[in-house]
Amino acid sequence: MYIIVIGCGRAGAEIAGRLARQEDSVVVIDRDKRAFTRLPDDFVGTTIVGPAIDDEVLQAAGIEQADAVIAVTYGDNSNLTAAQIAKQMFKVPRAIARVKDPVRAAVFAELGIETISSTDVVADAFSAVLAGRTDG
Amino acid sequence: MYIIVIGCGRAGAEIAGRLARQEDSVVVIDRDKRAFTRLPDDFVGTTIVGPAIDDEVLQAAGIEQADAVIAVTYGDNSNLTAAQIAKQMFKVPRAIARVKDPVRAAVFAELGIETISSTDVVADAFSAVLAGRTDG
Repeated sequence: MYIIVIGCGRAGAEIAGRLARQEDSVVVIDRDKRAFTRLPDDFVGTTIVGPAIDDEVLQAAGIEQADAVIAVTYGDNSNLTAAQIAKQMFKVPRAIARVKDPVRAAVFAELGIETISSTDVVADAFSAVLAGRTDG
Repeated sequence: MYIIVIGCGRAGAEIAGRLARQEDSVVVIDRDKRAFTRLPDDFVGTTIVGPAIDDEVLQAAGIEQADAVIAVTYGDNSNLTAAQIAKQMFKVPRAIARVKDPVRAAVFAELGIETISSTDVVADAFSAVLAGRTDG
């Protein structure tokens, strides 16, 4: 798989590291080059500095060949916009946006954009731990 | 169950709402009373305004009767401190802290504090969605 990760915060760095470890081809984009220090030491992949919602940056990242785009910047709107651009302009098969606001996540899910609500997954993890599972 | 939720951000509000819905007794603490507007409309429980790491506030919240404390403020250190106070000073059976930094989460897990790494659970959710499950 050829996967572009937009945003190299903690979640982006963790996801990029996991994908690279499972032999996916990974390109990480962030507007701040210091963000790439979060990538794990064993990371093998490409990093690009630039704004994520920029055609030239996305083309440099090889978006036309990408199998998936993962949008995990700090801003819900940035992530949703990036996912829409990937899906609609560049016909990327999968575009998944991290969204903190559960209401917004629900709205965009209805519009056909794949979203992950970080609020919901964290709440799910607490529910699982409280219910007695200790692997959370 | 009698559960104290410390921090009424998005995750805290979501967790408190879920617990209240399943008939747990819930007390939510936040230092900013505006945070409680995040609670769902059907929330039934107690809210207390004050700093979370304050004995008087915790006693007002009934910490001596609590079955569990969930620490989900914005700060990793605040959450870890709150969990430690609950566990060691007030002998609360379960104290679970949300931690954003996976390295810190690992260290504190080794010290016996239950932690949930929001970075890891979000990365897990992306992995699951990419692997083809669409319930994320």
